[in-house]
Amino acid sequence: MANTYDIAYDLEKQIRESDEYEQLKQAYQAVNEQAEAKKLFDDFRQLQLELQQKQMTGEAISEEEAKSAEQSFQNIQQHKEITALMSAEQRMSLMINDLNQIITKPLQELYGTLEEENK
Amino acid sequence: MANTYDIAYDLEKQIRESDEYEQLKQAYQAVNEQAEAKKLFDDFRQLQLELQQKQMTGEAISEEEAKSAEQSFQNIQQHKEITALMSAEQRMSLMINDLNQIITKPLQELYGTLEEENK
Ligand SMILES: [Ca+2]
Ligand SMILES: [Ca+2]
Repeated sequence: MANTYDIAYDLEKQIRESDEYEQLKQAYQAVNEQAEAKKLFDDFRQLQLELQQKQMTGEAISEEEAKSAEQSFQNIQQHKEITALMSAEQRMSLMINDLNQIITKPLQELYGTLEEENK
Repeated sequence: MANTYDIAYDLEKQIRESDEYEQLKQAYQAVNEQAEAKKLFDDFRQLQLELQQKQMTGEAISEEEAKSAEQSFQNIQQHKEITALMSAEQRMSLMINDLNQIITKPLQELYGTLEEENK
C-alpha cells in the first residue's frame, strides 16, 4: 500500500487538476489583466486584513474605517472579474475545508472521545 | 482515476493506521488512566489556553500568572506519561503539517506567483 506521503502527493495532483483550481486560476488571471480592478481588489484585501487584525487584538474600528471598508466592497462588486474571483475562491475554500475535515477526522475522534470521557 | 474525495479518504485511513496516530492514541490512554497526571495536564492546557488568548488580545500577563504557568509546566514534566504524550502530539503535528504543505502547494503557488507579479 502506498505510504501517507505518496497519497498526499496524489491528492495535491488531484487538487491541481480540479475544476475548482482551474477556475480559480483563470479568475485570478482575469483580475490581473485588469489594472483598475486589480488595484481595487488589492486595496480591499489590505483594508480587510487591517480590520481583521484590529478585531483580533480588540482594537476599536472607527466609523470612518467601517465606511471606507463598505465603500471599498461596493466598488469591487462593480467589476465582474472580481465577483467571479471571489466566487471561485469560495468554491476552492469549501473543497479544501471538506478535504481537511476528512483528513483530520482521526484527530477529531481522539480529542472528541477524550472530552466525552472527561465529562 | 479516483476522485479528490476518494483520495482524501485514503489519506485519512493512512493517517489512522500510521505509527504516529497509534502512538498518540496510546499516549493519551496512558495519561487518562492516571487520574493525577490527567488533572495536572488538563489544568496546564487550560492555563496555556488562557495565556494564549491574553497574548492574542494584547492583554497583560501578570508575574503571578507567568510563575503559575512555569510551575504547572514543571509539575507535568514529572510525569513520564505526560512527556510521552507531548512528544507524540508533536510528532503527529509535524506529520499533519507536512501533509498540509504538500496538499496546499497549488494554492501557495497561485498566490505566490501573483505576489511576485505585483512587485
Ligand atoms: Ca480535557
Ligand atoms: Ca497582492
